[in-house]
Amino acid sequence: MERIEKQMQFILEIDKEKQIKRKTLQSNGKDFEDDAQHAWHMAIMTLLLSEYSNEKIDVLKTISMLLIHDLVEIDAGDTYAYDDQGLKVQNEREILAANRIFNLLPEDQAKKVFDLWNEFEERKTPEAKFARVMDNFQPVMLNAVTDGRMWAENGVHLEKILKRNEKTHEGSEVLWKYMYEHFILPNVKKGRIKE
Amino acid sequence: MERIEKQMQFILEIDKEKQIKRKTLQSNGKDFEDDAQHAWHMAIMTLLLSEYSNEKIDVLKTISMLLIHDLVEIDAGDTYAYDDQGLKVQNEREILAANRIFNLLPEDQAKKVFDLWNEFEERKTPEAKFARVMDNFQPVMLNAVTDGRMWAENGVHLEKILKRNEKTHEGSEVLWKYMYEHFILPNVKKGRIKE
Repeated sequence: MERIEKQMQFILEIDKEKQIKRKTLQSNGKDFEDDAQHAWHMAIMTLLLSEYSNEKIDVLKTISMLLIHDLVEIDAGDTYAYDDQGLKVQNEREILAANRIFNLLPEDQAKKVFDLWNEFEERKTPEAKFARVMDNFQPVMLNAVTDGRMWAENGVHLEKILKRNEKTHEGSEVLWKYMYEHFILPNVKKGRIKE
Repeated sequence: MERIEKQMQFILEIDKEKQIKRKTLQSNGKDFEDDAQHAWHMAIMTLLLSEYSNEKIDVLKTISMLLIHDLVEIDAGDTYAYDDQGLKVQNEREILAANRIFNLLPEDQAKKVFDLWNEFEERKTPEAKFARVMDNFQPVMLNAVTDGRMWAENGVHLEKILKRNEKTHEGSEVLWKYMYEHFILPNVKKGRIKE
């Protein structure tokens, strides 16, 4: 198959990400957002908030990571951040998905996407650390502006949020402090997040 | 207001872009895509297809343009590519929208977003030309894979598609040829696009 045909096959396949609903409400408090919307939102946030990264980051690389990191959910589905059972098998399902979907691309581009995905998962580089900040900050922000409903309905405990965010400060001290003070604490006080 | 508060206000405001429906069906043939999904799709396409740009492009700048270029539709709404009446007043509505929305940001970032938006609109730089290729290629691709239904239902003439795309080749000869041969011509033959 020609190079451009492989690229087109991948580009059409990933259209399905628009159908993967998350457990986060949009700011209108009615509609759940999907993975494509989530990735778009975080990409713009990275353009605007990269100045708060603890370390200097390559913005294009960080955005690229965020744009592609949920593609595996086309096959593996979205696993809720606080679903312990789901999280156990998530990893295997996602590796199978990455193999199928990324390999639709020409070999050099498949490798690039794999490398970005692995870098995000390993969370070692400044770019991956900051991308992970975005991936935690964005849904917490939306939960907070929708009156903490998703936390309340899912009975989420503060402990779990803190556990999930134990490394967020490694990407950005400023943004971790902001989200803790403006999004998390007020919802603990209001009883939306269980203590 | 503090810098970070202004940034947060903007980031929350643009969440509304997820509600702006377009006149393009997703590849499932059922759901219309929205502006956020559209921008996400084109951003990944730019990562993968920039090799077909006639001129060398700054990929981050091109992606940044595509991520922000439809934000004005939060106020101005989506204008269908072939709605002549709508297109006449579109420009004024979009300038008002840009003023309101972009100016939520700190001054330096508002200027950056304005500059990106104007650059896209003016279509003079290699990045703007390629971004415009993406903005035309992506919906034509989705129309084609959904059996040309949107063209048929809206009674779109070939002449209008060619007029809208008269400068697409300036951004990428390869992608213009591909979309003409693979997406447009077959749908003229099938009668989905009127001659």
